[in-house]
Amino acid sequence: MTSATPLFGRVCLLGVGLIGGSLAINLREKSLAREIVGVARRQETREQIKKLGLADTVTGDAAEAVRGSDLIIFSTPVGSYAALGEAISGAFKKGAIVTDVGSVKNAVIRDLGPFVPEGVHFVPGHPIAGTEHSGPAAAFGELFEDRYCILTPPPGTDDAAVKKVQALWEACGSTVQIMDAAHHDKVLGITSHLPHLIAYTIVATAQDLEEATRQEVIRYSASGFRDFTRIAASDPIMWRDIFLNNREAVLEILQRFTEDLTALQRAIRWGEGDVLETLFTRTREIRRGVVELGQAGTFDTRERKTPEESED
Amino acid sequence: MTSATPLFGRVCLLGVGLIGGSLAINLREKSLAREIVGVARRQETREQIKKLGLADTVTGDAAEAVRGSDLIIFSTPVGSYAALGEAISGAFKKGAIVTDVGSVKNAVIRDLGPFVPEGVHFVPGHPIAGTEHSGPAAAFGELFEDRYCILTPPPGTDDAAVKKVQALWEACGSTVQIMDAAHHDKVLGITSHLPHLIAYTIVATAQDLEEATRQEVIRYSASGFRDFTRIAASDPIMWRDIFLNNREAVLEILQRFTEDLTALQRAIRWGEGDVLETLFTRTREIRRGVVELGQAGTFDTRERKTPEESED
Ligand SMILES: NC(=O)c1ccc[n+]([C@@H]2O[C@H](COP(=O)([O-])OP(=O)(O)OC[C@H]3O[C@@H](n4cnc5c(N)ncnc54)[C@H](OP(=O)(O)O)[C@@H]3O)[C@@H](O)[C@H]2O)c1
Ligand SMILES: NC(=O)c1ccc[n+]([C@@H]2O[C@H](COP(=O)([O-])OP(=O)(O)OC[C@H]3O[C@@H](n4cnc5c(N)ncnc54)[C@H](OP(=O)(O)O)[C@@H]3O)[C@@H](O)[C@H]2O)c1
Repeated sequence: MTSATPLFGRVCLLGVGLIGGSLAINLREKSLAREIVGVARRQETREQIKKLGLADTVTGDAAEAVRGSDLIIFSTPVGSYAALGEAISGAFKKGAIVTDVGSVKNAVIRDLGPFVPEGVHFVPGHPIAGTEHSGPAAAFGELFEDRYCILTPPPGTDDAAVKKVQALWEACGSTVQIMDAAHHDKVLGITSHLPHLIAYTIVATAQDLEEATRQEVIRYSASGFRDFTRIAASDPIMWRDIFLNNREAVLEILQRFTEDLTALQRAIRWGEGDVLETLFTRTREIRRGVVELGQAGTFDTRERKTPEESED
Repeated sequence: MTSATPLFGRVCLLGVGLIGGSLAINLREKSLAREIVGVARRQETREQIKKLGLADTVTGDAAEAVRGSDLIIFSTPVGSYAALGEAISGAFKKGAIVTDVGSVKNAVIRDLGPFVPEGVHFVPGHPIAGTEHSGPAAAFGELFEDRYCILTPPPGTDDAAVKKVQALWEACGSTVQIMDAAHHDKVLGITSHLPHLIAYTIVATAQDLEEATRQEVIRYSASGFRDFTRIAASDPIMWRDIFLNNREAVLEILQRFTEDLTALQRAIRWGEGDVLETLFTRTREIRRGVVELGQAGTFDTRERKTPEESED
């Protein structure tokens, strides 16, 4: 594609944090948009977005930003969609495409769908990529490279609109998969929501220990605990909204997990070494799948030595 | 220290895998030993140890290796200590030091203590450093750098022997902490054993899903699950032995974890957003502690691009 004919004209990013900001970098670097307008509530965030050059214009007024936009991307916590949707419902340009990056999809269609008028196309999406950091400064262009992006267009969605959103993600280096919203919520309940719930719990359990022990838990965290602390450092509002909006799927998989944990607990109590060994052996297969599919990321036991890449 | 006066004369490594092999590299690079003798059961492992140059001599006969050694380091799974201890009990040189790297400490003292004769010094240890890989090829010299190593000498242990083992770990780049074995087992139950138990469980839960869903779980693992698969890829025998030998501490912390998880489950069921948000906010504090103490390691969401550093 040449810069003379970008994929989109004016793109409105409702929320320019880790995900919205990383999209902005791609939109710019790959000349996918003629113009980018960013929205954030706080003055402080808007200044950061400007300073980082993530948008051509930045505003706190969502409706104003949506007016005249060809593509509107919701990239705020999913709990904010309904109010935002209501605020902008009168501002859509005819033929515009609305998409999002929210981590749940059924609730998003429920909350946002009613505010999308006739003649505007709604293509819900979810990039399977992220880090524990948030805000505009956490954004980076490679975030979506070699990752999957799921789109869950409701039945009857305009095919051309789906294809345009797909082209956007492909330009970011992602592979697009299309599925039903309920199925998305079930699968992500397993791969993302349950792991985060468990990581938050174990870190909370450790934090309730007396002060002296808590210091030791931090000191000796390299023995396994540290990985959970990273996951449990993710944004509290984002995760509150996810659990409130994918309740059924999360509770169902949590029930299975609890049963499996109880069985393992029993094996430990009764000293059933063979049960433990068998289970610990068969879990390796999934890891192989993850590594082979190039979805493992890279963990280095050593500390990051280059100061410019430091965390937070 | 000069290479003319190494810290130890002959060092016997009972087991030369990830931990034993990484020690061997340090012993060699830092001229801490005059001679290294490695022990492994399998011919295949012994050949790998030789090929990698991790020992001067390699044998399958533990007693022969111990004979004449000044320092003996158990670095096999802890379930093998009792039998190994019995096999070598007659072979110790007077004044020798016996240490280990096992992940539990009470059971090690129980199993190995009775086989350590008068005049031989027993200094149990545990380096808080590791990866999910095992075997001699997984060893690397920097493994212990900037990490802690816990020593749990029983009351009355010769002070000079403790100091020599401490000097060994400090030479490897670690900070040594001395504590009671029972306390070690309690703290590591939280920082290491519970996290591994949970990671194994969640991966097993995912593996029990129908084939199609399992493939999707692998595909979308970058959303959180992948970190658990890495932890759950650790050696099954090593972990079986840990759970069998730290039963009480693991069951106790597991009970607390389960209570906390149940409370969170209830908050999700009843849509208590404030409970979730408060909990997700306070867990960030521990992460900050881990990062500030330089124990976070380095996670990069991208795939490792250099082929020479590939996994397994
Ligand atoms: N983080 C991940 O790993 C990840 C991965 C995949 C999908 N997602 C999804 O992506 C979405 C955004 O996550 P993120 O990590 O990018 O969040 P983030 O870094 O915290 O950024 C959120 C952005 O939205 C703005 N914002 C928040 N509430 C708003 C509101 N009511 N109206 C207008 N702007 C608002 C924020 O600025 P102000 O606070 O100043 O308004 C900020 O610019 C969420 O729906 C999440 O589920 C996240
Ligand atoms: N991995 C970690 O992250 C970590 C961290 C801290 C402490 N530890 C502790 O370190 C110890 C070793 O773990 P590792 O990860 O280094 O294991 P590893 O990589 O699997 O190496 C074990 C070594 O011991 C040998 N071995 C096993 N059983 C033996 C036996 N009965 N007699 C003689 N040699 C035997 C193995 O060779 P053969 O199979 O050929 O005999 C191999 O050379 C364990 O006690 C573990 O709890 C591990």
